[in-house]
Amino acid sequence: MIREWSALICIQIQSMSHFQDQITGPTLILDSDIAKANIKAMANKIGLTENRLRPHFKTIQSAEIGTWFRKYDVKSCAVTNIDMAEYFADAGWEDIMIAMPVNLRQKSRLLALAAKVTLHIFVDCPEVVGALANEAGELGVWIELDIGDGRSGVDHEALDGIAQILDKIKETPGLRLEGLATHAGHSYQSRFDTELVFFSMRMHSRILQARYDLELRGYKNLKISYGDTPTCAVAELSPEIDEYRPGNFVFFDLMQVEIGSCQESDIAVALAAPVISIRPELGQVVVHGGAVHLSKDFLLRDEQKLFGKVVTLTEHGWKAPSPDVRVVSLSQEHGVIQGPEEWLNSLKIGDLIGILPVHSCLLADAMPWYLDTNGNKIEKFTLG
Amino acid sequence: MIREWSALICIQIQSMSHFQDQITGPTLILDSDIAKANIKAMANKIGLTENRLRPHFKTIQSAEIGTWFRKYDVKSCAVTNIDMAEYFADAGWEDIMIAMPVNLRQKSRLLALAAKVTLHIFVDCPEVVGALANEAGELGVWIELDIGDGRSGVDHEALDGIAQILDKIKETPGLRLEGLATHAGHSYQSRFDTELVFFSMRMHSRILQARYDLELRGYKNLKISYGDTPTCAVAELSPEIDEYRPGNFVFFDLMQVEIGSCQESDIAVALAAPVISIRPELGQVVVHGGAVHLSKDFLLRDEQKLFGKVVTLTEHGWKAPSPDVRVVSLSQEHGVIQGPEEWLNSLKIGDLIGILPVHSCLLADAMPWYLDTNGNKIEKFTLG
Repeated sequence: MIREWSALICIQIQSMSHFQDQITGPTLILDSDIAKANIKAMANKIGLTENRLRPHFKTIQSAEIGTWFRKYDVKSCAVTNIDMAEYFADAGWEDIMIAMPVNLRQKSRLLALAAKVTLHIFVDCPEVVGALANEAGELGVWIELDIGDGRSGVDHEALDGIAQILDKIKETPGLRLEGLATHAGHSYQSRFDTELVFFSMRMHSRILQARYDLELRGYKNLKISYGDTPTCAVAELSPEIDEYRPGNFVFFDLMQVEIGSCQESDIAVALAAPVISIRPELGQVVVHGGAVHLSKDFLLRDEQKLFGKVVTLTEHGWKAPSPDVRVVSLSQEHGVIQGPEEWLNSLKIGDLIGILPVHSCLLADAMPWYLDTNGNKIEKFTLG
Repeated sequence: MIREWSALICIQIQSMSHFQDQITGPTLILDSDIAKANIKAMANKIGLTENRLRPHFKTIQSAEIGTWFRKYDVKSCAVTNIDMAEYFADAGWEDIMIAMPVNLRQKSRLLALAAKVTLHIFVDCPEVVGALANEAGELGVWIELDIGDGRSGVDHEALDGIAQILDKIKETPGLRLEGLATHAGHSYQSRFDTELVFFSMRMHSRILQARYDLELRGYKNLKISYGDTPTCAVAELSPEIDEYRPGNFVFFDLMQVEIGSCQESDIAVALAAPVISIRPELGQVVVHGGAVHLSKDFLLRDEQKLFGKVVTLTEHGWKAPSPDVRVVSLSQEHGVIQGPEEWLNSLKIGDLIGILPVHSCLLADAMPWYLDTNGNKIEKFTLG
């Protein structure tokens, strides 16, 4: 009876306690309703039945948030490194892609993990393929194609080179040929959704053309894995693509608003930062929250750098940003915010403000855990 | 006898083993000889006997590296947050300054720490001082003055405001008035050492003038704490300043080279990054090492962003950077490096390259530990 009463009291206290009361320093806050709505929208768009959504967990980096995809029967995920792959394998994910050109110095860990789960890696040259020969496990190998992004991958039109890699994969023991993977990262240069739609059509035709040309050369049954949030969020997707692997869309951010992938109200994370200095004479407020939390990514507004937009924290979330309030500079742990007089007057030292990030992936990576806006701590991966 | 032999064998193995052999992913490497030389130079410049050096440990964030200051009889340090203050207190530091405007939401932790060590905090308004009233410990309080940096602090000429805060400190229980603290962060806008010397003279005269004016008003015995690496590294220091608190100088970085505070050969940290893709047709190499490691801070070169310079790793360190090899873009974990053909031809997938950072504080903050160039792991603070 005593136990039941104390449980009841605990529930009472929890429901009365404001998530802000738990915050004493810079804190990564998450509106899980928004994140779940973003997941639902993407899962519905990419298709529930075909298992075509392979979310890129470099953004969320959290086993608990990963479970929110289970409802949509998502069975696979992508990450950026072996540490994160091992973390999600421990969390029960059985089909994991490391969506970066393979790091040969980690071959033994890759093989060990491939013995436990279905592991996928990227290659972009024949020498790497040869170096991956093994008798231990079965590594799933994708050839990364560069369809214009200009980062890693083989040029999508270099068919001879691609064919060489395909041959090498087939003759190398311990490897399982999967197909062609690409990341249309240059979608981030698009602005407005119409531009994105046309961009996406061009990019889809490039990767599909590459598969078609390779098929004519006798390379059959190559799957296609296609990345990037802007395309997946806005453009029409192709039934011919085997899987899509957007990542950022769970949280979105100001950069995605800029590109046209989402609205500001779709952003699911913010940095809660305590006010530590108020400078009415400069029209500025200083918060504890800086480059080590938000990253130095910025947008340009009237030739000024914008490192984040400010929101007012409420009982269970935050309110639409004040358009005139901007994070104008960041040093290691200081954030300087410019705002109008009435906003400055509404604040006192010790208050919390929220900052919508320019780049949510970098914010989430930098922070050790999430606090959701109901006051629950959510664990995440950190590099030990 | 067996023990002695096994010790000998261990030493043999250690001296034969190359530090690079331990590296499989992006790794923060430290040339401790360079760091120790930087510490020695600064300790000698600021003065061995007067205990005027209060190194800002936001850069190193490591108890072990902190011990390298003990040789010069350094007894005090500065940090940016309460977590780091507690970390260095646990490591035996007994005089710690949190060199940021105080975060009132952490008052109870501040008081708990002040009961164990000599703790110093910054304030810049009377309301905060009032809120710090306590009966528990003795908090050392500095008024932060803004001498032109435009971040936090009271304007150095706002004498009435400063006097109000001084009065408030005196009447508030549990506080110990220390003096005036300032951070000349706008030294980072200087270029070339001569510019820095003149800048520093102006800044020193501003803070000394403030103390003089306050003395005329009856506020005696105010100490001065003065920050920033560029000034401390290059300019003539004043015997009238009670303590200097540079931080970055232990490692330096490309930004400090740009300012004129050091030479490239003084930089003590680099990111070791494995080569994961070679793109001869683009003149590019891709490494595993990106924005989450190096930060997005950049310098401009011919209107192009420069995110780091490349060095060749050697048996116990690295060689002078190749001037034509530049980190030209960073995404979450990819780094794209542009270089001449002969450099590209010298590389193969799986090789390690070194990257000198634009901002060493942010690099060190992002990484979980150091590997020194003798192959020893050095622990550091990480936010749990």
